[in-house]
Amino acid sequence: MVSVDGFRALDEKSLVDYIKATPSLCSKLGNQFEELQVKEVGDGNLNFVYIVISPSGSLVIKQALPYIRCIGESWPMTKERAYFEALALKEHGRLCPDHVPEVYHFDRAMSLIAMRYLEPPHIILRKGLIAGVEYPLLAEHMSDFMAKTLFFTSLLYHSTAEHRKLVAEYCGNLELCRLTEQVVFSDPYKESQYNRWTSPYLDRDAEAVRQDNILKLEVAELKSMFCERAQALIHGDLHTGSIMVTQNSTQVIDPEFAVYGPMGYDIGAFLGNLILAFFAQDGHSSEGENRKTYKEWILRTIEDTWNLFQTKFTSLWNEHKDGPGEAYLSAIYKDSEILVLVQKKYVKNLFHDSLGFGAAKMIRRIVGVAHVEDFESIDDTSKRAYCERRALEFAKTLLKERRGFQTINEVVLAIRELTPNEVA
Amino acid sequence: MVSVDGFRALDEKSLVDYIKATPSLCSKLGNQFEELQVKEVGDGNLNFVYIVISPSGSLVIKQALPYIRCIGESWPMTKERAYFEALALKEHGRLCPDHVPEVYHFDRAMSLIAMRYLEPPHIILRKGLIAGVEYPLLAEHMSDFMAKTLFFTSLLYHSTAEHRKLVAEYCGNLELCRLTEQVVFSDPYKESQYNRWTSPYLDRDAEAVRQDNILKLEVAELKSMFCERAQALIHGDLHTGSIMVTQNSTQVIDPEFAVYGPMGYDIGAFLGNLILAFFAQDGHSSEGENRKTYKEWILRTIEDTWNLFQTKFTSLWNEHKDGPGEAYLSAIYKDSEILVLVQKKYVKNLFHDSLGFGAAKMIRRIVGVAHVEDFESIDDTSKRAYCERRALEFAKTLLKERRGFQTINEVVLAIRELTPNEVA
Ligand SMILES: Nc1ncnc2c1ncn2[C@@H]1O[C@H](COP(=O)(O)OP(=O)(O)O)[C@@H](O)[C@H]1O
Ligand SMILES: Nc1ncnc2c1ncn2[C@@H]1O[C@H](COP(=O)(O)OP(=O)(O)O)[C@@H](O)[C@H]1O
Ligand SMILES: [Mg+2]
Ligand SMILES: [Mg+2]
Ligand SMILES: [Mg+2]
Ligand SMILES: [Mg+2]
Ligand SMILES: [Mg+2]
Repeated sequence: MVSVDGFRALDEKSLVDYIKATPSLCSKLGNQFEELQVKEVGDGNLNFVYIVISPSGSLVIKQALPYIRCIGESWPMTKERAYFEALALKEHGRLCPDHVPEVYHFDRAMSLIAMRYLEPPHIILRKGLIAGVEYPLLAEHMSDFMAKTLFFTSLLYHSTAEHRKLVAEYCGNLELCRLTEQVVFSDPYKESQYNRWTSPYLDRDAEAVRQDNILKLEVAELKSMFCERAQALIHGDLHTGSIMVTQNSTQVIDPEFAVYGPMGYDIGAFLGNLILAFFAQDGHSSEGENRKTYKEWILRTIEDTWNLFQTKFTSLWNEHKDGPGEAYLSAIYKDSEILVLVQKKYVKNLFHDSLGFGAAKMIRRIVGVAHVEDFESIDDTSKRAYCERRALEFAKTLLKERRGFQTINEVVLAIRELTPNEVA
Repeated sequence: MVSVDGFRALDEKSLVDYIKATPSLCSKLGNQFEELQVKEVGDGNLNFVYIVISPSGSLVIKQALPYIRCIGESWPMTKERAYFEALALKEHGRLCPDHVPEVYHFDRAMSLIAMRYLEPPHIILRKGLIAGVEYPLLAEHMSDFMAKTLFFTSLLYHSTAEHRKLVAEYCGNLELCRLTEQVVFSDPYKESQYNRWTSPYLDRDAEAVRQDNILKLEVAELKSMFCERAQALIHGDLHTGSIMVTQNSTQVIDPEFAVYGPMGYDIGAFLGNLILAFFAQDGHSSEGENRKTYKEWILRTIEDTWNLFQTKFTSLWNEHKDGPGEAYLSAIYKDSEILVLVQKKYVKNLFHDSLGFGAAKMIRRIVGVAHVEDFESIDDTSKRAYCERRALEFAKTLLKERRGFQTINEVVLAIRELTPNEVA
């Protein structure tokens, strides 16, 4: 059934007819439809994702429906999110083609994106982290993705005119932003029908979050920054479930929450989810596999990601200091003394923003609506609660005392201090 | 001559034909055209302003031409600025009708606004300040205007959806924003053909501004905040030349630079221009009129404006704490302890932003392209340079050390310390 606006929800069968009617997709499959395999694999929260494989090609089709998949039609959500996802995927692909799947086709009326199939052994990073798999290039790749996508869409590279035009465009993605505002920055700090936690173990902890005035003071500042500050094009949902990996490849998907916002929101999402993965490890360890080495790798990856990011970001700045960016005109910030001063200040603020947003993203995954498989997959609830509580306590400290941290190494040391017997 | 887009520049003669062809304007003049008086009075930098008086009515017509009036056709500037001026005038008028002239008519193709004529004895506040006239209600009125226009267009009153829609709309005013970025935040800190200062007296002072790394570090932060942070609908040009006054009336005109930006930009513009007026007084004093009392009045007005603003702004917040604003949901920030905490933090940050922007607005009026009549009207150039230098020194200190000021009284004390023998 086609609705007035040209939209119809596809299923595994009607999808094939859609592909057959779309020449660019036919050719991606080598025009072979006899042995076509179609499989819906959407394990995400919002959308439907189909893998389509023919003997001589493959692709992925993602379709947004006008509600949130994991909740159902009772929580409507604009399907126009697919438009912003396609826009951001293309922009990210242009800026960082090594780490973003190619977009083959976008159909706005159908809220449908066709893109490269990230073939096995690509898996969702979060699943790899739960399984205890090391990805030696992860920090290198993610720092690359974040440095490029954030630098080139900020006023360090944009003219202010270009920036305001793009800011205006992405303001249209307001429904998705509102979802973030609610589930990340509001619901965890108040009573909400959507909140949940490992009960009864964490009942008092959830209550403590709602009563913590200093925490609420800090999260208010972050929420305002998220809503007001158009610093760069952010992915908007850069957790470990939006990244697919192999030993050699790191691919960032699912930027449907893209908007011009604070850079620290993306960096924090990634780092915060790595910290969650760290605290979940004790729930995955078994006799003969205590995950000690693996936890070390996670901590090293946290440290390397930020340090590499800051180096790459600053290098891009130096490289383009005479470029189109208008925040720091080279005629004013020309000599290296002042350039180093402004860069240090910029990066320091970004570091503290990232820690703040990272902490907020951790908290919401423990006492808010959407939890993470890292913890959910720990069957023993008391064990799970133990892991979650330590993560929550760390996140609260990080949010409240983030300005006291000078380096990422100090953050890692603070994590170690919470787990003195486990990690050397 | 009408251009393809329906625009034609009017003069005193063709203006009358325009009015005659526009019924709503005819009726404002009581349909009487025999004894019509038309006079172009635009003393501003950008546009043409006509006062039109008939025996039974009056109005003002403002038209934007596609360049900057005081420079000429060599500096093109979109006439679409009139659209944003009309939009903001109407919004300001809705929020604060007592202090904004009514808009009678707007013609987008003609970039033409018709509004209430602010009849004599209304004069431009800057001229009153130069003449040494006290306006006992100024602080009361301006704190009212700023509290209302800023509060009601911020996330303290807007839903985030409404906010993003309006932010997107005003992003269109990017050319005017670019002018601000250039003349306020960039040119004064670099060599520019447009910069000027009272030479040779201030040659070294202008040079010192361009060499001051700490100053440049601070101004970079303000420029980024101006470009990135959509905190509220700001007037964008709220100096003492955009305010018309009598003893009982205060009217804010000329919001063609309106955009969603940091609130402190408006507050700083007003306070910074009052401080400029203060430092200019010694250039206007003559024997028998040392302006000592008047300087006291200016300092009191600076203090009262901020203190009244902060009281009114906080009152609006309390009054609307269960309203549509989404930055601080009442379910989270409900009890008075946390509400007081967040309000104090918000107002403190706003205070420091205001001081920073105020200082930047002062500096640019002394070493940038557009100067103020407060100083320009001091004929004795060495005397003028003396006044300007003290204002400049104070502004530099304010910009660099603004976070050290806790109250506006401390700022006023710092001004007094620079002029120990003059003001008690
Ligand atoms: N290009 C792709 N190649 C392979 N698998 C993909 C691709 N895109 C999505 N997937 C799979 O579909 C799942 C959901 O996709 P995602 O874009 O995250 O949707 P949602 O917005 O619903 O979270 C992913 O976790 C991944 O397993
Ligand atoms: N509504 C009005 N009533 C009376 N005089 C006005 C009115 N609007 C503008 N003026 C006069 O015209 C001058 C220029 O107007 P303004 O709006 O500031 O233009 P510009 O954008 O060129 O600075 C003002 O300084 C004031 O003297
Ligand atoms: Mg996803
Ligand atoms: Mg998604
Ligand atoms: Mg003006
Ligand atoms: Mg003007
Ligand atoms: Mg103007």
